[in-house]
Amino acid sequence: MRDSAQPHLSPGEPAPSAPQTWKLTLAYDGTDFHGWQVQPDAVTIQGELQNALQRITGEAPLPQGSGRTDAGVHALAQVASFPLNARIPAESLLRALNRILPRSIRVLEAVVTSDDFHARHSAVAKTYEYRVFPGGPWCCPPFLARYVYACPWPLDRAALRQAAEFFLGEHDFLSFAATDADLTTRSAGGAPSTIRTVYCSMWEERSSEAGALFVYSIRGNGFLHHMVRNIVGTMLDAARGQMLPSDIPAILAARSRSAAGPTAPACGLFLRSVEYP
Amino acid sequence: MRDSAQPHLSPGEPAPSAPQTWKLTLAYDGTDFHGWQVQPDAVTIQGELQNALQRITGEAPLPQGSGRTDAGVHALAQVASFPLNARIPAESLLRALNRILPRSIRVLEAVVTSDDFHARHSAVAKTYEYRVFPGGPWCCPPFLARYVYACPWPLDRAALRQAAEFFLGEHDFLSFAATDADLTTRSAGGAPSTIRTVYCSMWEERSSEAGALFVYSIRGNGFLHHMVRNIVGTMLDAARGQMLPSDIPAILAARSRSAAGPTAPACGLFLRSVEYP
Repeated sequence: MRDSAQPHLSPGEPAPSAPQTWKLTLAYDGTDFHGWQVQPDAVTIQGELQNALQRITGEAPLPQGSGRTDAGVHALAQVASFPLNARIPAESLLRALNRILPRSIRVLEAVVTSDDFHARHSAVAKTYEYRVFPGGPWCCPPFLARYVYACPWPLDRAALRQAAEFFLGEHDFLSFAATDADLTTRSAGGAPSTIRTVYCSMWEERSSEAGALFVYSIRGNGFLHHMVRNIVGTMLDAARGQMLPSDIPAILAARSRSAAGPTAPACGLFLRSVEYP
Repeated sequence: MRDSAQPHLSPGEPAPSAPQTWKLTLAYDGTDFHGWQVQPDAVTIQGELQNALQRITGEAPLPQGSGRTDAGVHALAQVASFPLNARIPAESLLRALNRILPRSIRVLEAVVTSDDFHARHSAVAKTYEYRVFPGGPWCCPPFLARYVYACPWPLDRAALRQAAEFFLGEHDFLSFAATDADLTTRSAGGAPSTIRTVYCSMWEERSSEAGALFVYSIRGNGFLHHMVRNIVGTMLDAARGQMLPSDIPAILAARSRSAAGPTAPACGLFLRSVEYP
């Protein structure tokens, strides 16, 4: 039912339902997708979700993500919002979506939320993690290969830990942003800016069936395009002795992408959570 | 150097090297392959391995596996053997193979072994495991989906445990063999037969990052085509109340594929190990 197309309403008729705002929490294996954002002739998470919603409801709202994940980047709990006129019990929408979506995308939660909720504008913090397999691609188990960066050189753990601390706090992260201006200046509301605040930046070892992983966690009030992957690429340079962890403040101060290290591969990156007020 | 093409050898010349027999241990994610066995116009594990060997050595032996895994079936430690004239240090061959092979196939070990070794004929026992995610496909995490069967109905664990015990020992497994006669009658040497001995047959719970899995392990002196998947499909029927675990002896005695349950999906199956004298 598309209420906006009904200009005249007689007294006594039941009020047509206004569109409701839905919030979905999603996990996905990004390996086989061209990222979050809808693109012509490419399979994307946003596109798959829109198609599934259309098949279920006949409506085709474009779900807004908390941010765009790039091709190959995974999500443990991406959040998306969209309006829907159809009235569907939340549990039914969740089940119907998971029946239609490919098994590499799962809806973890579906709820009707307040009308002013927007997955990106309402977000106050996000956490990403980056998983590194330290044994190199030669011995990375095939069951891990899609979900880690198999780092080919030995890593100095102390250097990683030291490097991570320099990103804590408020900084201008322009040196760690992709050079595509449009994307670097998106911020969570407010004026375009490359200043962000990082609340947590740490490495830990995590054991898995296939051996130990190094996992980097970063929580902040917003992230520029490629920011996490560029931070990780720079820290890995420090961990192999290409630079010193203590060079990082100067890299931040340079406000130039060329001052920082390379962009770490997409396959190691997971959007872990998005926080709202 | 292909020695077989050298019929005349003068006295005093060094003897040309005879081909050596190699044994490889391999892990693979079978999701994107059309099984082990080489097929025209299809990507297979055996084919990828043969191509990699040819690129490295110029020779193209067809590696013999301990058994053919079907499309979608995984291996934690498949074993393959083949002759090679080229003299290469084992560590170099392993590294070169892992540089060329897709990351969904890894060589875990490469050794030169005795000339009479054959990955299939020399095998004395094999172990498979089958991984079941008990929450159904609607909530199976995308990072597990390739590596488990997401079973859509509740499972009676006691029935699973009871059912597993009936497969222990020597039985004619014709009821649990695929109906393609050629494949069902392959045995580890000896005359065609559908009699096999099962040394271990058990279910256990295994916790993973994404929740608990039910894992079935079966070790035996040989397996007919589809035997593990048909055993699992039958046990899952018992675990949902479609039959009783105590019906299994009669199913074995029937010597008819139609007496047993359905073939469980390939994606849950892993070849875990192959044993040699």
